[in-house]
Amino acid sequence: MSGPLDDASRRFLETQPVGTLTTLRSDGKARSSVVYFTLEGDRIRISTVAKRAKARDVTRTGWASFCVMGHEKPFPSLSVEGPARIVTRDIGPATAALLEKITGKTPDAVPTDEQLAVGGRVILEIDVERVYGVSYVS
Amino acid sequence: MSGPLDDASRRFLETQPVGTLTTLRSDGKARSSVVYFTLEGDRIRISTVAKRAKARDVTRTGWASFCVMGHEKPFPSLSVEGPARIVTRDIGPATAALLEKITGKTPDAVPTDEQLAVGGRVILEIDVERVYGVSYVS
Repeated sequence: MSGPLDDASRRFLETQPVGTLTTLRSDGKARSSVVYFTLEGDRIRISTVAKRAKARDVTRTGWASFCVMGHEKPFPSLSVEGPARIVTRDIGPATAALLEKITGKTPDAVPTDEQLAVGGRVILEIDVERVYGVSYVS
Repeated sequence: MSGPLDDASRRFLETQPVGTLTTLRSDGKARSSVVYFTLEGDRIRISTVAKRAKARDVTRTGWASFCVMGHEKPFPSLSVEGPARIVTRDIGPATAALLEKITGKTPDAVPTDEQLAVGGRVILEIDVERVYGVSYVS
């Protein structure tokens, strides 16, 4: 079982809290923002809101790129890309895991899909299909 | 004289050493990598090599996006975009300023364009035309 991520890359992604998500706008240009993420298997998961531009980009294009950097010299980095989608069902555990990463606290309860839907909260999920850039990750 | 960057944004960009450069590939998808940069006026400057994919993307599309993040919670960030180009003339001072940022040492001499041309070294320059995302920058 060899996926796109080798052990060093996986370790690196697991230790970093945030990365730069890049999606494609309807005018064909790129849109980037810094977001918290989790890696589960070969998937990157991000919590966002359905009406946000990044979510709409992913719904329209089915693709995203994600670039993660370390925070000290020599600023190791890893860039990945792959099919992406917006998920609204069974997203309580993934959302709770992201909240824990953001707040540093374990949530009291895993939210239900119904609770998350009230605020339009969704999971933006990227399949890591390809690692296209890597620097100083070892 | 009010440009796209307010004082807080300018200060933030001036204190960060690296950012995520995003260019557009020939297949229309986005390519991101972490690079050192300097801000001079309303221009972001990056030292790269002409044959690198990011330089070729910029030559082909005339556009780039740049996303800078702070390295501690709450991970402040700023995303900008604008016209971009590859510059090969009078790039010694900009290249020296970037080398100083990368190595932490003032170079012994400012390289000449001829010296830089030997290694294919160029400046990738982005006009900050628009700030399209900002979080926790104050």
